[in-house]
Amino acid sequence: MSVTAAKGFTAAGIAAGIKESGNPDLALVVNTGPRRSAAGVFTSNRVKAAPVLWSEQVLKSGELTAVVLNSGGANACTGPKGFQDTHATAEKVADVLGTGAGEVAVCSTGLIGVLLPMDKLLPGVETAAGQLSEHGGEKAAIAIKTTDTVHKTSVVTRDGWTVGGMAKGAGMLAPGLATMLVVITTDADLETEVLDRALRAATRVTFDRVDSDGCMSTNDTVLLLASGASGVAPEYDAFAEAVRTVCDDLGQQLIRDAEGASKDIKVEVVNAATEDEAVQVGRTIARNNLLKCAIHGEDPNWGRVLSAIGTTDAAFEPDRLNVAINGVWVCKNGGVGEDRELVDMRYREVHIVADLAAGDATATIWTNDLTADYVHENSAYSS
Amino acid sequence: MSVTAAKGFTAAGIAAGIKESGNPDLALVVNTGPRRSAAGVFTSNRVKAAPVLWSEQVLKSGELTAVVLNSGGANACTGPKGFQDTHATAEKVADVLGTGAGEVAVCSTGLIGVLLPMDKLLPGVETAAGQLSEHGGEKAAIAIKTTDTVHKTSVVTRDGWTVGGMAKGAGMLAPGLATMLVVITTDADLETEVLDRALRAATRVTFDRVDSDGCMSTNDTVLLLASGASGVAPEYDAFAEAVRTVCDDLGQQLIRDAEGASKDIKVEVVNAATEDEAVQVGRTIARNNLLKCAIHGEDPNWGRVLSAIGTTDAAFEPDRLNVAINGVWVCKNGGVGEDRELVDMRYREVHIVADLAAGDATATIWTNDLTADYVHENSAYSS
Repeated sequence: MSVTAAKGFTAAGIAAGIKESGNPDLALVVNTGPRRSAAGVFTSNRVKAAPVLWSEQVLKSGELTAVVLNSGGANACTGPKGFQDTHATAEKVADVLGTGAGEVAVCSTGLIGVLLPMDKLLPGVETAAGQLSEHGGEKAAIAIKTTDTVHKTSVVTRDGWTVGGMAKGAGMLAPGLATMLVVITTDADLETEVLDRALRAATRVTFDRVDSDGCMSTNDTVLLLASGASGVAPEYDAFAEAVRTVCDDLGQQLIRDAEGASKDIKVEVVNAATEDEAVQVGRTIARNNLLKCAIHGEDPNWGRVLSAIGTTDAAFEPDRLNVAINGVWVCKNGGVGEDRELVDMRYREVHIVADLAAGDATATIWTNDLTADYVHENSAYSS
Repeated sequence: MSVTAAKGFTAAGIAAGIKESGNPDLALVVNTGPRRSAAGVFTSNRVKAAPVLWSEQVLKSGELTAVVLNSGGANACTGPKGFQDTHATAEKVADVLGTGAGEVAVCSTGLIGVLLPMDKLLPGVETAAGQLSEHGGEKAAIAIKTTDTVHKTSVVTRDGWTVGGMAKGAGMLAPGLATMLVVITTDADLETEVLDRALRAATRVTFDRVDSDGCMSTNDTVLLLASGASGVAPEYDAFAEAVRTVCDDLGQQLIRDAEGASKDIKVEVVNAATEDEAVQVGRTIARNNLLKCAIHGEDPNWGRVLSAIGTTDAAFEPDRLNVAINGVWVCKNGGVGEDRELVDMRYREVHIVADLAAGDATATIWTNDLTADYVHENSAYSS
């Protein structure tokens, strides 16, 4: 279903030959209208890939007709030639669809520092355009995979309108945004400003709080396109909730497919002085390699949680900190709490609660454990 | 030689039974004078172990007669009882040496959140005191090992005076300070203020720039004790250089012994706008798990260097960044540079230069690669 669950969208996913493996590597998503409003959020990394620079620019109009996505190459750190290639890709899509390049967003994912094989990519655009279909969402989701083991899609349908999306990402996942490409579509009849507000509100509490390995990508892109084809203009709150639900679902799928991971770790920070501090503490815990190793070893090593918290400047008193792991308060008032032998860590999901005893704000960050498989996957070949 | 290389110091290292393995776990270093000036720097982690809280307090007098160090338990996150245990340890040392507890610093290292076996530690203090010797420096260095595979000592002798030291540390190495215990001694005849100034100047550019795994300890302590026994009062610059040399040497030994590491990585940031920004960029590169995995795989993946730099707020333009790996400028002006096939990464030391083209400040951070052995060592048991 994916990006074609909402009315007014077609999509395709094909193998253009960008990947040496011959796997699908090019996706096209087209908004057939009547409306063409669009919003996007992009990586906060200052080293931005050419397609990010391009798509940020074209989105200023608040309208998109199409999104072309490729795996097999990030087109990041590729200089002026890389930007020309992105431009040429958008021009090609515009040509075959009979629209302008300024209506076409481009997303790329793969190895940094390598130019794309344009002799394969441009003919691939024509092939993809020939296969555009209202049932093409799944194929598009498959074509954007890199080290992903599964493709990721999500759909919610409300009262006469739908929000659907696809995502790719399995590593280099870190806030602002998690490393990924995401395209969300809706047939709700809404203007760009509403899309933008709903998308930013959703990503702030979903993708921005997924942190697999603390590494921020050069290519992160989340786009939201509205066709208006349902003829329904939902209330803002209902629409924002639907977008947040899809983002949250896709974010969870990213964590569950993180490279080499054997545990999904929910880090819930409670009783913080402010939400920002709760997020800061949650991220710091989520990025602690020693803790991530301990969780991998099913060791409820709460000392590593405390030593991570201690590196932040959030409001807390060390002797009032409490930590629970899978429901057992192993640390109370900064010291030894309930018996750590009571903690059952056999299952994939691990739930850490860090109680700062400093206020009433809360935030949840999702991360993974650190495993030998992660090391292998990221050292055995360039990715 | 270690802490007894300088005149006016005795030391001992024994197995008190704190470690279940029966390995040495208690060290005592005594300043026999005539002078007893001392300075120290401690972890900037806000969750501080009991011995850190104690030693910070006693150092306010600017004098120390003895340092007692134990491995086999960090005495961190152990509440009021943990602090009482540290106090009792200092009292015991004071009793057997005939001095006051306020003259005794305490250092502990090992697992967080576990109380020390005082029934073994206190008799151990008596045993150690009975074995104090001018040749005991090496035994003391051995007794403070945890996951260290080798003990670490360093000595420099100048014109009639000596600076020597010992260090332990093999994981949880990160700035402010690297996770470790260090005791440095000198027979130079210098006052507390000079020691303090020289020690802070040295640690700022040595231990503070060692970052094995981005994890900051609760127990980091670096102490500098002066006996004055040489009768020589060197010039500040000469003394500061000697202290820096010992700190730099010990810091290098920590990196070379980092848990599971197969590569020592020197991250040199050049042409930064300020030294602080050079340090910030260096640390960010040094903490990038994906890059550390790539180096482990002998893959000169410079894209991961750029994507790390891009997450900082240091002054730079993305299209002016240059990166060299082992002398080959694989990235020029933010894009593809010399052929990455030219990079030879067979050896243990890897040298990354990140040129920000934004000024003339520079800083060097040392780190390690990320390996399956690191994961194993930190997941197979509590440490």
